[in-house]
Amino acid sequence: MSVETLSGQSEKAYALLREDAQKILKLIEVQMANLTMPQCPLYEEVLDTQMFGLSREIDFAIRLNLIQEEDGKELLGQLERQLSALHDASIKK
Amino acid sequence: MSVETLSGQSEKAYALLREDAQKILKLIEVQMANLTMPQCPLYEEVLDTQMFGLSREIDFAIRLNLIQEEDGKELLGQLERQLSALHDASIKK
Repeated sequence: MSVETLSGQSEKAYALLREDAQKILKLIEVQMANLTMPQCPLYEEVLDTQMFGLSREIDFAIRLNLIQEEDGKELLGQLERQLSALHDASIKK
Repeated sequence: MSVETLSGQSEKAYALLREDAQKILKLIEVQMANLTMPQCPLYEEVLDTQMFGLSREIDFAIRLNLIQEEDGKELLGQLERQLSALHDASIKK
């Protein structure tokens, strides 16, 4: 295995986590565009499961000292705010 | 940030994933001992969510080149076999 510094791995971890957060946002956007019912229990379940998966990835990266705990919380918080804005916009339609 | 080799991080990643798999097994053991109904939908849901979380962690570790794809699959497969044995033993009681 090649010798890399932890800092390169850390950057990659951040990039992957941001990518995964974006994927969740896209998935929810597509769901909303096609189902147009954010109050649907299935929608809630998909969202909860996806958020749980991302939080497990973030926790794993923190335990490997690849990302800071604060940054992980901020990433999840930011995604929650974006999803919430998307949800509000969809209700107002 | 300190300079570590990838191989140290890799060992830590394997250890964390094995630990998380053990936690899921323990959780299900405790659930079975206390609820004694593996056919309960809540049990299925908890298990599915936990397995999804672990599979996200494993996938993340693979993408960071910390673990081999084959090893990740084997870890999940092993846990599934252990859970299945636990489930069978509980039904026979």
